[in-house]
Amino acid sequence: MTEALLTKHTQSQLQAINHAMANGMYVHVRKMLHSMPASDIALVLESSPSKTRAELWNFLDDDFHGDVLEELSEEVRNGIIRQMVPEKVADALEDMDIDDLAETLSSLPEEVTQDVLSSMDEQDRQRAEQALSYGDDTAGFIMNTDTITLRPDVTVDVILRYLRLKGEIPEGTDSLYVVSRNDRLIGVVAVTKLLTASADVTVEELMDEEAEAISVDMHETEVAKMFERYNWISAPVVDENHHLLGRITIDDVVDIIREDAEHSMMSMAGLDDEEDTFAPVLQSTQRRSIWLAVNLVTALMAAAVSDLFEETLSQLAVLAILNTIVPSMGGVAGNQTLTLVIRGMALGHVSASNSRWLVSKELAIGFLNGLIWAVLIASVIALWKQDLLLGGIIAFAMMVNMVAAGLAGATLPIIMKKMKIDPALAGSVILTTITDVVGIFAFLGTATLLMMP
Amino acid sequence: MTEALLTKHTQSQLQAINHAMANGMYVHVRKMLHSMPASDIALVLESSPSKTRAELWNFLDDDFHGDVLEELSEEVRNGIIRQMVPEKVADALEDMDIDDLAETLSSLPEEVTQDVLSSMDEQDRQRAEQALSYGDDTAGFIMNTDTITLRPDVTVDVILRYLRLKGEIPEGTDSLYVVSRNDRLIGVVAVTKLLTASADVTVEELMDEEAEAISVDMHETEVAKMFERYNWISAPVVDENHHLLGRITIDDVVDIIREDAEHSMMSMAGLDDEEDTFAPVLQSTQRRSIWLAVNLVTALMAAAVSDLFEETLSQLAVLAILNTIVPSMGGVAGNQTLTLVIRGMALGHVSASNSRWLVSKELAIGFLNGLIWAVLIASVIALWKQDLLLGGIIAFAMMVNMVAAGLAGATLPIIMKKMKIDPALAGSVILTTITDVVGIFAFLGTATLLMMP
Repeated sequence: MTEALLTKHTQSQLQAINHAMANGMYVHVRKMLHSMPASDIALVLESSPSKTRAELWNFLDDDFHGDVLEELSEEVRNGIIRQMVPEKVADALEDMDIDDLAETLSSLPEEVTQDVLSSMDEQDRQRAEQALSYGDDTAGFIMNTDTITLRPDVTVDVILRYLRLKGEIPEGTDSLYVVSRNDRLIGVVAVTKLLTASADVTVEELMDEEAEAISVDMHETEVAKMFERYNWISAPVVDENHHLLGRITIDDVVDIIREDAEHSMMSMAGLDDEEDTFAPVLQSTQRRSIWLAVNLVTALMAAAVSDLFEETLSQLAVLAILNTIVPSMGGVAGNQTLTLVIRGMALGHVSASNSRWLVSKELAIGFLNGLIWAVLIASVIALWKQDLLLGGIIAFAMMVNMVAAGLAGATLPIIMKKMKIDPALAGSVILTTITDVVGIFAFLGTATLLMMP
Repeated sequence: MTEALLTKHTQSQLQAINHAMANGMYVHVRKMLHSMPASDIALVLESSPSKTRAELWNFLDDDFHGDVLEELSEEVRNGIIRQMVPEKVADALEDMDIDDLAETLSSLPEEVTQDVLSSMDEQDRQRAEQALSYGDDTAGFIMNTDTITLRPDVTVDVILRYLRLKGEIPEGTDSLYVVSRNDRLIGVVAVTKLLTASADVTVEELMDEEAEAISVDMHETEVAKMFERYNWISAPVVDENHHLLGRITIDDVVDIIREDAEHSMMSMAGLDDEEDTFAPVLQSTQRRSIWLAVNLVTALMAAAVSDLFEETLSQLAVLAILNTIVPSMGGVAGNQTLTLVIRGMALGHVSASNSRWLVSKELAIGFLNGLIWAVLIASVIALWKQDLLLGGIIAFAMMVNMVAAGLAGATLPIIMKKMKIDPALAGSVILTTITDVVGIFAFLGTATLLMMP
C-alpha cells in the first residue's frame, strides 16, 4: 500500500473508532479492535484522550493486554497499568519478553512494581527480578535470554537436525552463539552460513571469532551507536568474564535510537521525553510549569538588568523600543550553535580531541555574524530613527552579543557534559539568559555612556 | 567493552590521528587508517575540520574509498566527492550497494552526477540510472535488488542444495521471497523456517502469504514507520502489479529514523539537517544567516509594535523594563505546545480525527498557565515596583498571551501541514512573532489605557 493509503488506513481506523465510541456502538468498536494487530491498537490508544483510552482498554480481551502493553509508549502504558488490579497486570506481563518486562516494571511506581511482582508466579518473578537487577538503561536491561548456543565441535548436519527437532527459532534470530564448556562466548555463526555450508563442516570452521560482544553494563545509547555503526541485526551480551548472558535485537535498538534522537528536541523545548500528547490538562500543565518557572526567573533577571538603566530609559524611550532586538538575535545565533554541538556530541563527533577547534570555529562564526548583522541593523535603525549614533550603538551591542552567543553556545554543552548535566535540558535556558543579559548590558550600557548628558 | 571503553577507544583513535597529523607523522596516520573499519574511518572524517579531512582522505587506498563513502553523512560525503575527479568517483561507487549508490548520486550537484555517470561503465550506469528513476526519498530509492527468490513448488531439501551451491547469501537476509512464474510476489519464507522445516516440505507450505510488501513509491518516512511498528528486519518491495522489485533492510531504515527524528530538532533551531559541524566558517555562517535574517525581521516587527507606544514608554520607563517578560513567557509556553504537536504528527498520533480535541486541550492548558503565572507575576511586580495596578496590568497581559500561545502552538502546525509547509522549519518563528506582538500589545496597550492621563 502507498503512503497515502497507509496513512488513510490508520487515520480511517481512528476516525471509525472515535465515531463508533461517540455513538455508543460499543459492540462495533469491540469488533474493530479484535481485527487489529497489537501495534495498531497501541497507536489508537496513544492517539486517544485518556478517558476514551480507558474505555477502549476495557474492550480488549485480557489475554491480549500483554501484547498491546508491549507496544505502548511508557507514559501511556503506565497510565493504563495504574488503573489495573495487580493480578491482571501480572497476567498481562506473564508472557512478555524479558526485556520488555524489565522496562515495563522499572518504569512503574515502586509500590505498583512490588504489588505486581508479588502477584506473579515464582518463575516469572525470578525472571523479572533478574532483569531488574541490571541497571536501568544498560545492555542487560534491554537484552533477551532466548539465545541458541552451539558447541564448537558439532557439524552443520547435527545442528540442522537439532533445529528441526527444536522446531522453532526465536524471532529476530540472525546468528547462533558458540560457547565453550564453561559458557564463555567464543564465536558467532550467522544463520545464513548454516544454509550455505556443507553438512560435514564443524561450527569451529564456520564461526566468526572476531564478532564483537556487548558488555552487560554498557549504556543503551552506546549499544545503539554500535548497532548503527556496524549495521547489526542482533548482538550477544556477555558479563565481565565473557560468559554469554543473552542477546540484544535491532527492534529494541530502533526504539532507543528514536527516543535518544527525540530526547534533545523535547528537552530543549522544556518537555519530558515521554510527555503524552493526550494526557489530562492538569497533568500536562503541571509537567510543563517547571520550565515556565525557570523562564520567569530568567525573564525577571533580564528585566532587573534593564532596571539598572531606568534613568536612561526614562529619558530615551527609543532605547526601550529597540531593547529587545539585540538579545533576540543573540538568542537565535546561540541556540543554533548549541543545537549543533549537542547533536555533534550525540553522534560522537564532538570530543575532547576537537572541542577546542570547534569553539574557535563558532567564535569566528559569531564574529562574522556580528559584523553582518551589526551593519544591517545599524543601517535600518539609522534610517528608521534618523540617528547615526544610535545605529552605531546597536551595531556595537550586536557585535558583542553575537560573539558571546557563539562562545556560550559552543562551550556550554561541553562544560555541562563534564559536569554530568544534560545540555539539551538546561542548555538553552542558560544560553538565553547569557545572551539576554549581555545584549541588554551592551546596548543600554553603551547608550548610557554615549547618549546621556 | 564497556561504554567508557568504547568512547575512549574512538576518542583515543581521533586524538592519536590528530596528534600524528599535527606532527606530520603521515606514515603513522596511514598505518592507523589501514587498521580501521570503514565505519570508524567515516567517524574520524566527520569529526575532523574540512582541511584535515581532505588530507586524511588522500591517505586512503582508492579501493577503500567506496566503503568509506557509504558510511559518510551526505554533507561530508559530497564535500569530498566534489574534490575528486569523476573517474575516481566512478571507481569508488562501482561496487556500492544500489541503494547507497542512488542516494549518493542524487545528493550530488546535477553536473557532478552527470560527469560521474558518463565515466561509469555501461552496466553500472544502467544500475544507477534505474535506481535514480524512482523518486527521491521513495522505497524504490532505498531498496536493494539482491533478493533471493523461490518457486512455490520446490522443497526445502532442494533449496538447501541450491543455497549450498550458491555459497553466499546477501548481508541482512532474514527471509527469501516466493514469486510466481511472472515474478509476482506470492509469499515470504523466513530463513529460520528453512532451518527448522523437514527436508520434504515445499515452499508453498512454509511461506507466509499474509506478509505485507512495500510499494515502490511509498515515502521512506512511511517505510520507516512500518518497520518500527511491525519490527521488520527486511521487507520486499513491489510495483503496482505486485511484481517483486527488491528489498529494504533495517540498516537503511535505522538511518532514516535517526534523520527524521533529528530533522525537527535541527529545523526548529534554524539549521539544515545535514549541517556539518566541521564545515568551514564561511559556509556555516552563510547557511545559518537565513534564519537570523528572518528573526531580525520579526524582532523589528516587535520593536515596531513597541514603537506605537513610544509616548507611554517615554513617560513610564518601568513599562520598558517589564516589556520583555510577557512575550518571553508566551514564547516558551507556545513552543512547548508546538513541539509536542509536531512530534505527535511525526509519530502519527495527531490527525484530523483528534486535532479539535487537541486544540481545545492546549487552549485549556494555556488558560490554566495564564492564571498561574498571572497571579505569580502580579505579586512579584506589585512587591518589586510597589504598584498594584501595574501588577494587575501585567497579569492581564500574561493571561491573554498564554491563551494566544496555546492556540497558536496547537493550530499552527496543523494549518501549516495542510498548506504543505514544514511546521518544524517555520513554526517557531511564526509562533514567536505572534506571542511577541500579542504580548507587547496586551501589556503596553492596557497600560496606556489605564495608566496614562
